[in-house]
Amino acid sequence: MSDDDPIGAAVKLLARLPGVGEKSARRMAYSLLASGPQFAKALGDAVASLPERVRKCSVCGTYTGRETCNICSDPQRTDDILCVVARPWELDALERAGSFRGRYHVLHTLLDPLSGLGPEQFPLDPLLARVESAHTSEVIVATPPTVEGEATALFLAEALRPLGVKLSRIASGVPHGGDLEFVDPITLGRALEGRRGL
Amino acid sequence: MSDDDPIGAAVKLLARLPGVGEKSARRMAYSLLASGPQFAKALGDAVASLPERVRKCSVCGTYTGRETCNICSDPQRTDDILCVVARPWELDALERAGSFRGRYHVLHTLLDPLSGLGPEQFPLDPLLARVESAHTSEVIVATPPTVEGEATALFLAEALRPLGVKLSRIASGVPHGGDLEFVDPITLGRALEGRRGL
Repeated sequence: MSDDDPIGAAVKLLARLPGVGEKSARRMAYSLLASGPQFAKALGDAVASLPERVRKCSVCGTYTGRETCNICSDPQRTDDILCVVARPWELDALERAGSFRGRYHVLHTLLDPLSGLGPEQFPLDPLLARVESAHTSEVIVATPPTVEGEATALFLAEALRPLGVKLSRIASGVPHGGDLEFVDPITLGRALEGRRGL
Repeated sequence: MSDDDPIGAAVKLLARLPGVGEKSARRMAYSLLASGPQFAKALGDAVASLPERVRKCSVCGTYTGRETCNICSDPQRTDDILCVVARPWELDALERAGSFRGRYHVLHTLLDPLSGLGPEQFPLDPLLARVESAHTSEVIVATPPTVEGEATALFLAEALRPLGVKLSRIASGVPHGGDLEFVDPITLGRALEGRRGL
């Protein structure tokens, strides 16, 4: 950080956060100056210490401040169903939906051979071991409906089939409140394909 | 910060920044975890130390890391014209316009009797002293064209008139690229009033 321009130095770093441009970074810096040293200290410490305070849950792999996360240590949830997600924030999104009472497994990656993550590099063993040891009856594959997400789902289906568990994939279709006119053709095709009896 | 939920604690603080909601705060926290401890440390330190590293320029009052800011210590700029602004970021915005080569004076406030800032509390003396000592020939009042900004401009005009300097106010009108149809009536009225010969 330059002594001459501490605001400019802070703005440069703030602008590297996702969704923050130079202008909003500058607004943030001025707001930090306006709110005073106490808030700046608290926020700065929380940010600086975040990576060392957060670890991966020893069971499911999501981010947590403890050895095992809240969900894995919750005795109320069933071990029967395991939901496989790619990223911790996707787990958060599913939890906000509020209806799932099973457990999760976070891959932290997707199959992406073009970026050097092929089947050999894929962290498959921890998932296989977990499905086998936990007497899971169903695995829901909740990777995103993108090219990499679908490829990962197919790959996982093949790897898990020998274990004899029920396999399912989250539904893909027109989002709630979505206007059919503005939904892309692939999504519409999926919505038709995945139609359910009324 | 809670040991149980360092991400939640960081999200809460990040969401207090201007323009940041809970969702983008969460995205920021996850991106900090993804970019690793080095960036988090640099950003956290920059944020925590910002208020103690920034002071008000001893001449114009804008935020700076030094005793006097870059503009006040620039020998290339003229002392002839003084531009009065309410906030440091308004000074920045005017500097980005790039055409002004005079000096600035930052009030850090506007006249706002309803919020307890009446003429008695207004920091007028430093401005008067500066105009008198610097042999300023023109004062441009660049407070914003809002109720408080206009009230401040009128108040400053009255206070400065006895000093015999030329007084001017930044123009108010239709913004560059603005569509007349979508500009509010007060602005249109000002644009007509402030019309210039072609």
